[in-house]
Amino acid sequence: MSLTPTTAPSVATIRHDGAGGVTILDQTRLPHAVEFVPLGDVAAAAEAISAMRVRGAPLIGATAAYGMALAMQAGDDDAAIAAAHARLLATRPTAINLAWALARMRDLLMDTPREARVAAGFAEADRIAAEDVEICAGIGRAGLAVFEAVLAAKPAGARLEVLTHCNAGRLACVDWGTATAPIYMAHAAGLPIHVWVDETRPRNQGASLTAWELAERGVPHTVIPDNTGGHLMQHGMVDVVIVGTDRTTARGDVCNKIGTYLKALAARDNGVPFYVALPSPTIDFTVDDGVAEIPIEERGAEEVTHMSGKTADGRIETVRIVPDGARAANYGFDVTPARLVSGLITERGVIAAEAAALAAAFPEAARAAGRGGGAA
Amino acid sequence: MSLTPTTAPSVATIRHDGAGGVTILDQTRLPHAVEFVPLGDVAAAAEAISAMRVRGAPLIGATAAYGMALAMQAGDDDAAIAAAHARLLATRPTAINLAWALARMRDLLMDTPREARVAAGFAEADRIAAEDVEICAGIGRAGLAVFEAVLAAKPAGARLEVLTHCNAGRLACVDWGTATAPIYMAHAAGLPIHVWVDETRPRNQGASLTAWELAERGVPHTVIPDNTGGHLMQHGMVDVVIVGTDRTTARGDVCNKIGTYLKALAARDNGVPFYVALPSPTIDFTVDDGVAEIPIEERGAEEVTHMSGKTADGRIETVRIVPDGARAANYGFDVTPARLVSGLITERGVIAAEAAALAAAFPEAARAAGRGGGAA
Repeated sequence: MSLTPTTAPSVATIRHDGAGGVTILDQTRLPHAVEFVPLGDVAAAAEAISAMRVRGAPLIGATAAYGMALAMQAGDDDAAIAAAHARLLATRPTAINLAWALARMRDLLMDTPREARVAAGFAEADRIAAEDVEICAGIGRAGLAVFEAVLAAKPAGARLEVLTHCNAGRLACVDWGTATAPIYMAHAAGLPIHVWVDETRPRNQGASLTAWELAERGVPHTVIPDNTGGHLMQHGMVDVVIVGTDRTTARGDVCNKIGTYLKALAARDNGVPFYVALPSPTIDFTVDDGVAEIPIEERGAEEVTHMSGKTADGRIETVRIVPDGARAANYGFDVTPARLVSGLITERGVIAAEAAALAAAFPEAARAAGRGGGAA
Repeated sequence: MSLTPTTAPSVATIRHDGAGGVTILDQTRLPHAVEFVPLGDVAAAAEAISAMRVRGAPLIGATAAYGMALAMQAGDDDAAIAAAHARLLATRPTAINLAWALARMRDLLMDTPREARVAAGFAEADRIAAEDVEICAGIGRAGLAVFEAVLAAKPAGARLEVLTHCNAGRLACVDWGTATAPIYMAHAAGLPIHVWVDETRPRNQGASLTAWELAERGVPHTVIPDNTGGHLMQHGMVDVVIVGTDRTTARGDVCNKIGTYLKALAARDNGVPFYVALPSPTIDFTVDDGVAEIPIEERGAEEVTHMSGKTADGRIETVRIVPDGARAANYGFDVTPARLVSGLITERGVIAAEAAALAAAFPEAARAAGRGGGAA
């Protein structure tokens, strides 16, 4: 399978040429350079993940899957499967998709005769990638319907004004992204759309990654400081907010990049709908109260105290933006309570952010977590 | 008069040696260097204002007043007064304090015999500076009482956790600052206090100026991305929010640096008191509905797209942090509705953010704007 871009020309986050040649976009070079890295073997795949050349749970999973297939090219016995699994699993130990994709690849390969393992590995990695594309496309279709309804309520000829935070984009996925999927589909469908892109301090994923990928697909957008969204909403300049999430609880509390909660508050205060786009596997039916129960990662202060970018003469430099010796704190995420969420846009449609609706929409996952749902 | 620092040793924003020697702290070099500029004549004073070596309405007013006195050293006839007035007024035409201080100096000098104008000019500039110090000190005393009450409700030995946005600090004033005045007084009084400093994108006045001035006076503080405050408030890590304002309406709507509104929403959602510190002349009794009536300045996109700081080897560099060609928007301020404001801390005490209370507290200003108040 060749992973088909949603619109042409477009840069794929990962591409398999159908004959064992795998190439990734090196995201560590964005937004100032577009460079590709061929993954010639499992070592290259592992390095790409650990060095964050690929990032985002779905894309990490797909890259790891191709890494298992690549490993089979060099040696197809059971020990090679185990070694590749161990090596790739150690790259980013906390990523759920990584462990899931690797286990799936290992089990498939172990059940396959040695002589068929290379072909079977690439075929399964292709399926994992295609499944991610389909999940994101499902989110996109459900979100597109939301966008169409919001736009229909505006005067004829008006533009749909969307605000997003961080990068829940196709750069985190094989294609489409989560929060960006409805944006790309709306743009492709010819809806007049403009995106306010929160720069998303301190790591600036909005200003660097989201702005880059929207530009790459020709979607009109404007980068704003994270402080700006409230003012825009007070003045009717935002029609809908859509963000991604790292983890959604059984009752619909949403853990996402730090600052998401502030935008949800502003949306509520101004009657702007606030949607969260998510693949259903990120719903954690074992947790209810996100604020109380989800531990928030504290990251290094340098992400706050220093900033990297491109100088006028084209060099990449890092500068200190606080006084020498200043202390900084860096909480990676916050939790938006379900009461502020207008709806959860999933591959199974738009679900209300409340326990019964979530359990009914995903009964198998809810049951597995002992939360009833469906026929339980 | 020598402007007495509130705690020693401390760097004054402007200092008159009592004999015609005036020196300013060059704020364009902060936070990476502490440098002083002697103001030898009116030209130097004008340049200091226009180049933003001094900034903040009160400090601009005081600097302009000294500029008028300095002008008299070079020529004390009526034409010199008019010329100095015109030259200084042109530096930052929209600053209210600038026009007010210059008119006061011009009127005083015109009513003074030529041979007494140098001495009278410096004496009046000293008075303008001292009055600003006293207004800020009054805000500090009123705010200190608020802080003491908040701390008294906490367990014994607990630290008062304050969050502030932007720089409503002594760097904008002759001393104390507005939002920082209660902080400095609490620290001087021995209250255990810690300040969360919003970095305040896009111009980073929090990360650079507020962090610098708190460090310079030994007040414990931590710089945080603007996205962080909501998470902190959800987890009980902020006891009180205090910010400054550029303009407060007759009913208590507060125009302040972009992003202030988002913090007010988070404070309300978490039961955290949200106070605004202001000198009463910044109340605009001619405006009621701040969101609808106050035009919000749009500034240059470069403040969003580029960032300046210090490299590891000590150079000041500016880097681009968005993709080439990315569009950015830069709204300077937002308006926090009075309903979200716990109280307005003024030199006349803490006033409720509502029309009747404001008119009663400042009857002369309200009457002048035709808003009744007091015996009107």
